[in-house]
Amino acid sequence: MIQCPRGTRDFLPDEMEKRRFYENRLRHVARTFGFREVETPIFEEAELFILRSGPNVLKELYAFKDKGDREIALRPEMTAPAIRMFVNGMSNDPKPIKVFYFGQCFRYERPQSGRYREFFQFGAELIGSATPQTDAEVIAMASSMIRALGLKDYKVRIGHIGVLRQKIADAGVPKERAAEVLQKLDKKLYDEAEPLLKEMGVSDESMRDIFDLTETVGGIEVLDKVPGEAGDWLRQVVAYLEAMGVPAPEIDLGVVRGLDYYTGMVFEAEAPALGAEKQICGGGSYTLSQLFGGEEVFSTGFAVGFDRILLAMEKEGQEYQPEGIDAYVVPVTDETRLSSARITAMLREGGVSSDMDIMGRKMAKALKYASSVRARYAVIVGASELEKDSVTLRDMSTGDQRLVAIADLVAEIKK
Amino acid sequence: MIQCPRGTRDFLPDEMEKRRFYENRLRHVARTFGFREVETPIFEEAELFILRSGPNVLKELYAFKDKGDREIALRPEMTAPAIRMFVNGMSNDPKPIKVFYFGQCFRYERPQSGRYREFFQFGAELIGSATPQTDAEVIAMASSMIRALGLKDYKVRIGHIGVLRQKIADAGVPKERAAEVLQKLDKKLYDEAEPLLKEMGVSDESMRDIFDLTETVGGIEVLDKVPGEAGDWLRQVVAYLEAMGVPAPEIDLGVVRGLDYYTGMVFEAEAPALGAEKQICGGGSYTLSQLFGGEEVFSTGFAVGFDRILLAMEKEGQEYQPEGIDAYVVPVTDETRLSSARITAMLREGGVSSDMDIMGRKMAKALKYASSVRARYAVIVGASELEKDSVTLRDMSTGDQRLVAIADLVAEIKK
Repeated sequence: MIQCPRGTRDFLPDEMEKRRFYENRLRHVARTFGFREVETPIFEEAELFILRSGPNVLKELYAFKDKGDREIALRPEMTAPAIRMFVNGMSNDPKPIKVFYFGQCFRYERPQSGRYREFFQFGAELIGSATPQTDAEVIAMASSMIRALGLKDYKVRIGHIGVLRQKIADAGVPKERAAEVLQKLDKKLYDEAEPLLKEMGVSDESMRDIFDLTETVGGIEVLDKVPGEAGDWLRQVVAYLEAMGVPAPEIDLGVVRGLDYYTGMVFEAEAPALGAEKQICGGGSYTLSQLFGGEEVFSTGFAVGFDRILLAMEKEGQEYQPEGIDAYVVPVTDETRLSSARITAMLREGGVSSDMDIMGRKMAKALKYASSVRARYAVIVGASELEKDSVTLRDMSTGDQRLVAIADLVAEIKK
Repeated sequence: MIQCPRGTRDFLPDEMEKRRFYENRLRHVARTFGFREVETPIFEEAELFILRSGPNVLKELYAFKDKGDREIALRPEMTAPAIRMFVNGMSNDPKPIKVFYFGQCFRYERPQSGRYREFFQFGAELIGSATPQTDAEVIAMASSMIRALGLKDYKVRIGHIGVLRQKIADAGVPKERAAEVLQKLDKKLYDEAEPLLKEMGVSDESMRDIFDLTETVGGIEVLDKVPGEAGDWLRQVVAYLEAMGVPAPEIDLGVVRGLDYYTGMVFEAEAPALGAEKQICGGGSYTLSQLFGGEEVFSTGFAVGFDRILLAMEKEGQEYQPEGIDAYVVPVTDETRLSSARITAMLREGGVSSDMDIMGRKMAKALKYASSVRARYAVIVGASELEKDSVTLRDMSTGDQRLVAIADLVAEIKK
């Protein structure tokens, strides 16, 4: 029996309905914030992702040569494609540009709880603006989205990549090796960072300072420890968030986000319910367009791990109740089948979601099937009722039945 | 500058909004018919598609080995994945099962008008039922979808694969070579079919009969020429379609659909506006599950070429008007920026799609931007108005301005 490939999933009707429901909630919040949806291809030139993330990304990419010998790759994320799209087709649009997207991404890695080879991301990019208010707008939207989904226990942490960058530069780490160090610090791999920093001639004291900084977490008072521009910037971001009624985020100077192209504010959201793999959202301000052949343009964006956030909601006991159809039409005898088809078509035309027996089943079996598809009503079409231009309407939850004129049927069911 | 790969597309905001609008219309019709959405992975084991379509399909597949040395392929269509999903996870569900899906498919071929390497299909499968009413239900839905999109000029043609199969069998074509012949006839390649048939010892007269049959097109009277079961079946399908108010389809015994697994009724829809590539929808009844390791289950399904149908609508002059946002909030001075953020958040909370100046622009420039994002209203936040807990509401289409209490703002804009 052929299965779906390892690390991928089929979404059967109940699960799919739930996913579409929450996906549309995210879409609704994004639109309310004035963001507009875009879509990019499932695959891109592999080069695009290497430019964004460095050659190491190849290890995790689904990359292959197409029949024209081009190196292409299934997208592992959607920020690079969105910015490529901006460079190719939107760079002359009035700024700022606010876009969002939702879709499949692919990463070749060992599948585990909440991690799939085909996974779904929701993301947004605010392109062409670099102000504290820009950052606040993006964090506010991420926060609104998490709340709109109904996740109860989550935490938003905000940092500024400039603080740590300045610190490690001051300690003597050469600019071209900063990324290497930041990647270790991002994952709090101090054991691995230590020999690296030593090798670069960083003193024990500076090293302690660096490690301390990445552990500096707290309320807004933490900002008192942040000197200069970065501190002022974050103070303004926090003020705007407060004005917008966003629950106060944690300040965490250890948020590093492990990628070179972030320029200032960085943030993450996590759901403790998920344990070790608790990050559900990450983002920050960056410049990426110049890597893809465009001008340097400041942007702020984020991505939400849709699968993980749904898993977190599940762990919190949040349940989704799938909807059924409005009506199931049952012919009492074969003689009323054509009339049943006519009535079904009339219901659908009237916006009533309806189904009908097409397998020639007897009434008891047909009603059983109607229950299995969670029909609210059964519309029972008998010959004698038809003569009075009527049918029997059966409430499937109570079993109550009454005669209803066909002309009133749509209105009765919609009541 | 990196571009999106050849044959793929970026969908910018206006285009994307239009696509989502029409996609949701299709979804709405499917739900109204009692179909439920499912989703399968973007890639599958390549074997799945070879089992469905034969090894020739490899030429057009985006197939590659993953890092685990598995032969995988981007899906070229979604019927095989849907039936695989049914075999794996839904085979014990109450029958019939009605599912639909929408998503990207991939085919490596020369890109041309209305044909892309990444294209979008909408499809539906009605699994586990084999009655004329089943076929009618599926054709009725396809027809409703095309009408719901607003396409004016289109034609639905219905045939029965059994008629032609019987004819070529009677003419002496061996069973195992029938597919070869049918593929030529599907494309009306008589010049290529002739030597094939001759080689199989088919007489000139039988050949003429076969070719005549594939050219037999007309109204329901054509069914008089169809002997036996196939004719009776199609007559019943047509009767149900009529009862359901579906515009009368053409009977076309030349609809062949070139694939081995069709078992009975086959149908296609075409939009003449598209010229040579005019097919927008195709389907029929089939059995496929046994090829994937399941039991033999009768199904009827179809797929709609979403890109082509949108192109046809465009050629008919159908235009989609993108929506703008409800309100754009403009602070008159820097002192009212925090209040502007607060008001924007309030509007969004109230379900008003809103944006605000985040770039520190002066009023005239901010209003110009508001026009460019098609805001219905500008909310102008000045210090003196704020003292009266009010703002200025400007109708962007007329330029009319009036003072509105902040407490009434959501209601005023939603009016």
